[in-house]
Amino acid sequence: MSNTNNSPADADKIALETRVAMVPLCRRTDERGSLLPLDWESLPFTPRRIFTVSGVPAGTVRGGHGHRTCAQLLVAIAGEIEVQLAHGGERRRVLLTPESPALLVRAGVWFSQTYLGEGAVLLVLASEPYNAAAMFDDPEQA
Amino acid sequence: MSNTNNSPADADKIALETRVAMVPLCRRTDERGSLLPLDWESLPFTPRRIFTVSGVPAGTVRGGHGHRTCAQLLVAIAGEIEVQLAHGGERRRVLLTPESPALLVRAGVWFSQTYLGEGAVLLVLASEPYNAAAMFDDPEQA
Repeated sequence: MSNTNNSPADADKIALETRVAMVPLCRRTDERGSLLPLDWESLPFTPRRIFTVSGVPAGTVRGGHGHRTCAQLLVAIAGEIEVQLAHGGERRRVLLTPESPALLVRAGVWFSQTYLGEGAVLLVLASEPYNAAAMFDDPEQA
Repeated sequence: MSNTNNSPADADKIALETRVAMVPLCRRTDERGSLLPLDWESLPFTPRRIFTVSGVPAGTVRGGHGHRTCAQLLVAIAGEIEVQLAHGGERRRVLLTPESPALLVRAGVWFSQTYLGEGAVLLVLASEPYNAAAMFDDPEQA
């Protein structure tokens, strides 16, 4: 399926759809609440770091960068969070809720998050330790 | 500080205070919300599994078991959660909030959690994969 008309620059661009994926989760929900287990063997990578984002005013946009080598798995624990993605000139939006799969964002993709309501909680699992030197802020670099 | 009157059974009992600890967290909170990074090198163990509990009706008690070999780190991401602990005949309660340190519960301690209000979110990091065979339900066995 090669395209011999691709320029070298085009060849470096890998379609956004190949750089993100929805990852099914196995939540156990009943009248006592919802338990979401994340066992390493069920994940697309072994986490080296996690972080949570909470207490965000509705409508706030956070993130707005990409990682040169680190993959991240985004999980909405509470509330609704829209993720904006950019890579290779393509853009896409994904809505995360406590009922949705997780969003796998591979290295090289720029992304930001809009917290759509009060009380949203985002959990992020990262494949590498924090490394500000391997991050980029410009979606045009993605 | 030995007590030569201790029976062998007593000698097996290690004070509850040595089996739990408060672990400082470094939350970054501003008007855009709160980011809680959990880097493995800052934790008392390397996590092998995490889980979250959310959507729990106020007043609900969950948990109610201990782990023979697994340590857990409990973090309140949102809301207030009271943890009941039992070990070696001792009992203790700890209140977790989004402003409190995390609670390290070492192997052998029985514990349960009471979710004090709507919207509480508990994050748990575990030192071992899930193993139901290494769990116990009776606080008298702790």
